[in-house]
Amino acid sequence: MRPSERAPDILRPVTLETGVNRYAEGSCLVSFGHTKVLVTASVEESVPPFLRGRGQGWVTAEYGMLPRATHTRGRREAAQGKQSGRTQEIQRLIGRSMRAVVDMKALGERQISLDCDVIQADGGTRTAAITGAWVALKLAANYLREEGLLTVDPILDQVAAVSCGVFSGTPVLDLDYEEDSNAEADSNFVLTGKGDIVEIQATGEKRGFSQAEFEALFSLARKGIGELCELQRQATGG
Amino acid sequence: MRPSERAPDILRPVTLETGVNRYAEGSCLVSFGHTKVLVTASVEESVPPFLRGRGQGWVTAEYGMLPRATHTRGRREAAQGKQSGRTQEIQRLIGRSMRAVVDMKALGERQISLDCDVIQADGGTRTAAITGAWVALKLAANYLREEGLLTVDPILDQVAAVSCGVFSGTPVLDLDYEEDSNAEADSNFVLTGKGDIVEIQATGEKRGFSQAEFEALFSLARKGIGELCELQRQATGG
Amino acid sequence: MRPSERAPDILRPVTLETGVNRYAEGSCLVSFGHTKVLVTASVEESVPPFLRGRGQGWVTAEYGMLPRATHTRGRREAAQGKQSGRTQEIQRLIGRSMRAVVDMKALGERQISLDCDVIQADGGTRTAAITGAWVALKLAANYLREEGLLTVDPILDQVAAVSCGVFSGTPVLDLDYEEDSNAEADSNFVLTGKGDIVEIQATGEKRGFSQAEFEALFSLARKGIGELCELQRQATGG
Amino acid sequence: MRPSERAPDILRPVTLETGVNRYAEGSCLVSFGHTKVLVTASVEESVPPFLRGRGQGWVTAEYGMLPRATHTRGRREAAQGKQSGRTQEIQRLIGRSMRAVVDMKALGERQISLDCDVIQADGGTRTAAITGAWVALKLAANYLREEGLLTVDPILDQVAAVSCGVFSGTPVLDLDYEEDSNAEADSNFVLTGKGDIVEIQATGEKRGFSQAEFEALFSLARKGIGELCELQRQATGG
Amino acid sequence: MRPSERAPDILRPVTLETGVNRYAEGSCLVSFGHTKVLVTASVEESVPPFLRGRGQGWVTAEYGMLPRATHTRGRREAAQGKQSGRTQEIQRLIGRSMRAVVDMKALGERQISLDCDVIQADGGTRTAAITGAWVALKLAANYLREEGLLTVDPILDQVAAVSCGVFSGTPVLDLDYEEDSNAEADSNFVLTGKGDIVEIQATGEKRGFSQAEFEALFSLARKGIGELCELQRQATGG
Amino acid sequence: MRPSERAPDILRPVTLETGVNRYAEGSCLVSFGHTKVLVTASVEESVPPFLRGRGQGWVTAEYGMLPRATHTRGRREAAQGKQSGRTQEIQRLIGRSMRAVVDMKALGERQISLDCDVIQADGGTRTAAITGAWVALKLAANYLREEGLLTVDPILDQVAAVSCGVFSGTPVLDLDYEEDSNAEADSNFVLTGKGDIVEIQATGEKRGFSQAEFEALFSLARKGIGELCELQRQATGG
Repeated sequence: MRPSERAPDILRPVTLETGVNRYAEGSCLVSFGHTKVLVTASVEESVPPFLRGRGQGWVTAEYGMLPRATHTRGRREAAQGKQSGRTQEIQRLIGRSMRAVVDMKALGERQISLDCDVIQADGGTRTAAITGAWVALKLAANYLREEGLLTVDPILDQVAAVSCGVFSGTPVLDLDYEEDSNAEADSNFVLTGKGDIVEIQATGEKRGFSQAEFEALFSLARKGIGELCELQRQATGG
Repeated sequence: MRPSERAPDILRPVTLETGVNRYAEGSCLVSFGHTKVLVTASVEESVPPFLRGRGQGWVTAEYGMLPRATHTRGRREAAQGKQSGRTQEIQRLIGRSMRAVVDMKALGERQISLDCDVIQADGGTRTAAITGAWVALKLAANYLREEGLLTVDPILDQVAAVSCGVFSGTPVLDLDYEEDSNAEADSNFVLTGKGDIVEIQATGEKRGFSQAEFEALFSLARKGIGELCELQRQATGG
Repeated sequence: MRPSERAPDILRPVTLETGVNRYAEGSCLVSFGHTKVLVTASVEESVPPFLRGRGQGWVTAEYGMLPRATHTRGRREAAQGKQSGRTQEIQRLIGRSMRAVVDMKALGERQISLDCDVIQADGGTRTAAITGAWVALKLAANYLREEGLLTVDPILDQVAAVSCGVFSGTPVLDLDYEEDSNAEADSNFVLTGKGDIVEIQATGEKRGFSQAEFEALFSLARKGIGELCELQRQATGG
Repeated sequence: MRPSERAPDILRPVTLETGVNRYAEGSCLVSFGHTKVLVTASVEESVPPFLRGRGQGWVTAEYGMLPRATHTRGRREAAQGKQSGRTQEIQRLIGRSMRAVVDMKALGERQISLDCDVIQADGGTRTAAITGAWVALKLAANYLREEGLLTVDPILDQVAAVSCGVFSGTPVLDLDYEEDSNAEADSNFVLTGKGDIVEIQATGEKRGFSQAEFEALFSLARKGIGELCELQRQATGG
Repeated sequence: MRPSERAPDILRPVTLETGVNRYAEGSCLVSFGHTKVLVTASVEESVPPFLRGRGQGWVTAEYGMLPRATHTRGRREAAQGKQSGRTQEIQRLIGRSMRAVVDMKALGERQISLDCDVIQADGGTRTAAITGAWVALKLAANYLREEGLLTVDPILDQVAAVSCGVFSGTPVLDLDYEEDSNAEADSNFVLTGKGDIVEIQATGEKRGFSQAEFEALFSLARKGIGELCELQRQATGG
Repeated sequence: MRPSERAPDILRPVTLETGVNRYAEGSCLVSFGHTKVLVTASVEESVPPFLRGRGQGWVTAEYGMLPRATHTRGRREAAQGKQSGRTQEIQRLIGRSMRAVVDMKALGERQISLDCDVIQADGGTRTAAITGAWVALKLAANYLREEGLLTVDPILDQVAAVSCGVFSGTPVLDLDYEEDSNAEADSNFVLTGKGDIVEIQATGEKRGFSQAEFEALFSLARKGIGELCELQRQATGG
């Protein structure tokens, strides 16, 4: 039995609330159960130096966690003077995941920055962030088209993510914090709307794990991401 | 006429929503119009080194702004590797303001940290943060008493804050961003529930300003802070 | 009785020695009793990026304290790798105070940097710094006119500052360190030569304080700043 | 045809030279073709603060690249004042991979630090580092047993790693730099000697990729890691 | 002819003014012509961690330059967030020079920190700093003896320093900035009162230079340091 | 008797292995006994900002030490976020030494960066680095001539370095770590192929030392550097 009493293949309640920031070109407050991430998409009419003059755009992401997003207060990264390795790893993952579904030529020489700030954390913050970031990104692209700045939609497909793990010997979908802290294996899957692989990260936490276990996790992820993509379509009117 | 069409002595709509974080000992989402600040109060059972063994507590504050809290995206302080002078100035102000109404002996050897994160900014973020921080602080003190960790309330009085300024030659209460950007004088008042002065900061933005103007700002602040204190009492069941 | 045996409305002996640096376009060693601050004004023929091409100038300030300026040695900020929040707060205040009396158009596209380094500290370093910085600034403007680089004086008025506080229940002018450490309320006033308000910062240190006390502090400040302005005129031959 | 003219399932020539540092308790210079990583294992008789007094040990890793390890000179991280996100991601991966095969109780309250410095880079530096780090780690454990500091071997199994990718539409084993720069999908597999999964990281570089492609990569990795484990056994006399 | 019209073996006017800081246990304002360095000696009743419990003391130094000490304003190291390589090199040299003449056992478990801040620079700041630092150090040792904290003088000998260089083909003593900028060879000598070598640093600036030139510089340094030692004795009443 | 049983005027076995990096324009692995430094010379077709447009080149150096180059593991500078004062001092010395024998006009507007990374340290790392850096620099210059990018050799002379010290009262050549840790005086000499002085650094470690001792050290250095220059010529085919 999972601590949350969910069946192994059941997601936590997921909500994708849009329009939560009055300035951002796209925004989404995503909840996976008690995990809440606020995502804003900001359009800037310039690209990083390494891309200037190439007629293409860029999409990047930053991730942060409010100090009391967690059970006990963590130190504020701005006060410490640097982002942790974990933070950098996560924001690199979010950026790569978004770029996998964007046509950079179609975007033109502009950058979309996705800021993912964790308001409350109960496991799965990076997968919630990816799922919500796509919504904010899509809304920003819609905004650019409505403003006449783009004629073609640069967003080629959806992208969403979920974690899966082996908990008490059983493969389960969408780990919460209590499960995550005790899982024997932990994995994050990022798939497109068509089901292609964008990113897989799988780690044996206390021991190695078997290929059969891995395949069970992958199946759960496919199911969960299918449901997340449906919610994304509803949120973006797609 | 103010851009917001408010009369000179009228606050923006203010809300103080409590219980917005499931882990923090106290929390408050404070809105002054479109300005929204999420405040959490975290109790830690230790004090900073300079106070150890003195039988007294400490209250401190940190302040941050999400990158897209503002009209155009600002740089993330954690990514830049340092907090700006403005950020440090504000968090020092919030901490001083809270400490002015806390009996540190009554609090015992523990620290309460107030994290004030601006979700959306439309002027007056520091005064909203102070007003909301007092609510979170009070709720954390209530929690300590309910848990039997404290028998006496260490919170001696309320404290709330508001900005005032001279806009188009007229003293007005509670500046929003458009007013703040164009004010001839800008001031922040922090007063206790009894009306004592905790902090006054007044600045001539484009020119010096007169003592008569200053006194008009002070009167407006007294009116506004009286109203904010009433809302604080409602929010904390006081 | 004040520890210094001064009457409540009496400044410490104040000196403003000019021409103390052979390279700077303006310089002043300011003493308020045992507090000594060396100020240099450096003219640079360029402005910060945000002002380029606008046909106007800029005035900025930096503040530092030598490690043994104080009773016990403090850590060197350069060795620690960052400026404290207090340092940044003070240098921002000095810069704002100077800019309030400068006609930036008249200054032209050049910057004047005021470096305020505390050689010895006995309370009131920020107000001494402001008072001396104006002298160095004025001398640098005189230099620019003598060199024919400016035809109009960009310095519109004087600006000077003093601290006041409530010590043992009595409002007093120009706190030294011993008074400052024990004051119930502490305030800094920055006024122009004409008496307009440039900046007021007032803080209740151990308790809130009353409006009547505030007004007494303001009156003392007016008297003190009047005397400081007279000394500034003598120092600059005005 | 691969640029290196290797068949799709063929590793580059791999060497594991031990005893290359006269001070370290274990050391290995690992080469995967032109990629060369120097690994040292350093035993310290203390553990990080979070583990003190728990009767268990710790294994950690750091990774660096000499500025001219690559085709064009990169900036020295020590001179830049921080490690890149990529560096931190890699050193966290190496540390996790080693810890998956160590019995921390058997190791006792001591730490083994694995320093992986890339002397020359031609793709696959992280997988070479993991493969060589296990050799250095094993030698350090042997040293502790020879010195009588340990009676039981804390190393529970081997661990090795290889990259695979889809290059010109074909799944291939052990990408060199030229292949890596042009791969459609890139993956790193870390497996134990018994074949269990320690870590999988798979990324679609320009597009998502299919489950069938992923499975082909996994098969290639199993073959390659089997060969690497045989070389590890030879290098450590196992 | 030297720009300063001095003969090759003549020092600039040197003054060593003591008692210039009311808090420091020893202090000296040293001038070598227009070069002015303020040195304070601070006694702290503790030693760095690597010396704790060994019954011996430590002497260390820090060096800084005010931004407008030079012809054109330099950036403030505290604002830049780090000390330059040059600064670190100089403060390490000053510390080593002082330690060469101190009996650390006789000093007891306390540290003397020498802060050397350049008020105005016209060449030779490091040699002026060393010469003045010895005076401040000696005065601090005298203070410790007067207070009864030490019974034996821990200062074993004097130490002073001077620069020499080859300017327009001629070896000259005590380079000022104009000479230093154009010297073919530049050297700093640190000698004890007895004439022993504490440190020699000699550098060919545009070309290598000969042993004969080096010997001429060394002779000049001996003469100059003899004169500096006499001034040190006068300043410290020795 | 020296710990190494060498006669006072005998170098450790020295090797200069070239072509050790497949990407660098010049490279050398230099060994002085157990001290091993890997040097690469990287040519970049641009110069630092302060030299742009002057028609001349630049040569610079960076120095680092792998964490386990030493008997006990040191902290990684990249992880600590800054280079130590010792590191900066050494890399500035290496750069100055190289620049003393390069005709910057002949080099043209390009920069050669010498990265000196200590693989294993047993005393004398900076002198080994200088000796090896010249070899890498010469090879890079040869490369530029072979590629037709230069017609004239910009390398005017050789430069090499060795340490000498007073150990147990005897002047000895080329200190190893055990000698260096116990030397009464320590010195580094950098001389050109013609025997001119590029740099001398001599330090009394526990006491001052005499001019006679200094002259003995200088004689030993001349002998040792003569032998090193012969090895450099062999390594570069000169």
